[in-house]
Amino acid sequence: MSFPWPRTDLTELIGIEHPIIQAPMAGVASPALAAAVSNAGGLGSLGCGEMTVEQLRESFGETRAWTARPFNINFFAHEAPEHPSDDAAAMRGWLAGYYQELDVRESPSLSETPMRSFDAATLRAVLELEPQIVSFHFGLPAHDMLDALKSTGTVILSSATTVSEARRLEAAGVHAIIAQGYDAGGHRGTFSEPIAAGSIGTFALVPQIVDAVSVPVIAAGGIADGRGIAAAFALGASGVQMGTAFILCPESAASPVYREVLRQTRDDETVVTRAFTGRPARAIVNRFVEEMAPREDDVAPFPLQDSLTLALHVASVARGSKDLAAMLAGQASPLARALPAAALVETLVCEAQEALAREK
Amino acid sequence: MSFPWPRTDLTELIGIEHPIIQAPMAGVASPALAAAVSNAGGLGSLGCGEMTVEQLRESFGETRAWTARPFNINFFAHEAPEHPSDDAAAMRGWLAGYYQELDVRESPSLSETPMRSFDAATLRAVLELEPQIVSFHFGLPAHDMLDALKSTGTVILSSATTVSEARRLEAAGVHAIIAQGYDAGGHRGTFSEPIAAGSIGTFALVPQIVDAVSVPVIAAGGIADGRGIAAAFALGASGVQMGTAFILCPESAASPVYREVLRQTRDDETVVTRAFTGRPARAIVNRFVEEMAPREDDVAPFPLQDSLTLALHVASVARGSKDLAAMLAGQASPLARALPAAALVETLVCEAQEALAREK
Repeated sequence: MSFPWPRTDLTELIGIEHPIIQAPMAGVASPALAAAVSNAGGLGSLGCGEMTVEQLRESFGETRAWTARPFNINFFAHEAPEHPSDDAAAMRGWLAGYYQELDVRESPSLSETPMRSFDAATLRAVLELEPQIVSFHFGLPAHDMLDALKSTGTVILSSATTVSEARRLEAAGVHAIIAQGYDAGGHRGTFSEPIAAGSIGTFALVPQIVDAVSVPVIAAGGIADGRGIAAAFALGASGVQMGTAFILCPESAASPVYREVLRQTRDDETVVTRAFTGRPARAIVNRFVEEMAPREDDVAPFPLQDSLTLALHVASVARGSKDLAAMLAGQASPLARALPAAALVETLVCEAQEALAREK
Repeated sequence: MSFPWPRTDLTELIGIEHPIIQAPMAGVASPALAAAVSNAGGLGSLGCGEMTVEQLRESFGETRAWTARPFNINFFAHEAPEHPSDDAAAMRGWLAGYYQELDVRESPSLSETPMRSFDAATLRAVLELEPQIVSFHFGLPAHDMLDALKSTGTVILSSATTVSEARRLEAAGVHAIIAQGYDAGGHRGTFSEPIAAGSIGTFALVPQIVDAVSVPVIAAGGIADGRGIAAAFALGASGVQMGTAFILCPESAASPVYREVLRQTRDDETVVTRAFTGRPARAIVNRFVEEMAPREDDVAPFPLQDSLTLALHVASVARGSKDLAAMLAGQASPLARALPAAALVETLVCEAQEALAREK
């Protein structure tokens, strides 16, 4: 069955039927989810920014076993920060109350986060795995690493939150650009200073990036149904990346409490916060987000803050409490549906085709 | 010539050919602009929130003289604040340096702002003028005032920045709702607490408001060309309101320096600030916006802050300097074009029709 998508440069570039990318969502995406999306004709993704090389091989192998179609593996490309000289004392002091409340060990090391930047060991593993698609967040790795990846035919994607970032990504040789609007859940992909500049809504951002670059543009942020896909095409995009829309799929790794909260989240109940990892990320407002809001100045640099808060998230989720859990989600959260991934992709395609036909 | 817009409930409701509303933009919209837009088949608007009753009559009369078609008059519907007991001493102290620099009188009264809430005198004048369309920002006036307006057949519009605000407006009896996304230039229309909650991008907001209400929805924020109009329809809107797109029209009242700056404004060069009037408004970043950023806590309540800053804006513009000027604009500023209003409306209609046809 052939679908008449208005633009096919992206689907042809990455060899998929439908221009729908399931966002990598580290900690939420799973081999089962990614494989199901790819098998349904979209592009599934694994968020590998928190994986060891061994975990990467394992997750990649599982996904490959379940689908013969292309899927995407995603990595963080931030520069690792210096440890703050004071060992984040003010932040530790504030968090001590939460450690006590949840009965977790009080003094995690600042290097305990699983969040890693793309390094030489990861590159070697990736080159062995021969992925069809690799996407990056927070910019791109060093030129030689990117060239090594590209030399094997791997398609490279990365996120831009401003027009100037999109131009930089194109100049660096990415094959397609994810235009991540402010509506999006999860970490802002912003990689230029000041990070606050990357607050441009999806609606305003997509056409401006389309005008600025000649590679295919993937719209991301606030897109959770077929109307959004049709609108993204109208704005000039060649496809979409959707994260929140897939969280409620049974194949996702989202915890029961995260699912329960997401089902009730309103349009105005997410905010961009540095509280969880040190980088701005859109999350559902909960007790932790609210109580941390006045303490943004004490937040340790990404990803060191994650070292200090991860245990709180894990303990909170283990207790079935939303209070201290990191629940990343976008402004279109109320549009998310609890459907199996294959049914969701099929539904999205039908809705988009209907919306595209109706607008004629 | 008949255009096959995908949805016609809005155009039928307000009696226009094209579902394109020129945003009221107090201080920028003019009778010439509004009349030109209406004569071109869209809906022109006058921003009357800063007008005396006499100025309202005059502007309305001019516009009426230049077009026989419907046009819109817009008012602020905020509750007038108490004067702060300290007479905004900290803010006055900070602004003193600017007063001195621009050689303006140092102690404006806190009630010198021309920004007025919709009151009984305005209502009487409006009832005499018999406008076809009245829109409100910052909510709605009292029920009896609204009923008086509606009893004469006037169509009422107001802005919502969240789903819950849209539900409140529908329950209060408005005929159509402007879904104002975070991408938008000018004052956030948010009228519920906390105002920060009204930060939802246009892309995420529009479909959720469409799902929540049964009246026509007008998309606003980040829309400046025909792609945006087509995308708004895909998201379920019945029309669009565009402000920034019209600022460069020769008919607008924008100052030369404002036009010059807008022509060079990038996607990431606007921010939401309370610095000018006390309410959050998206403006082009300039020296005043940057220097006021650390002083948001001292800002006087809307519209009292405007009493303190208006003279600085006026003096700055008179000198041809952008430094202290209030230059409200949205995140799609780079898409604005310097075309006569009639040509712009015609261009927008053609672009939208092309985009709608292409997506089929």
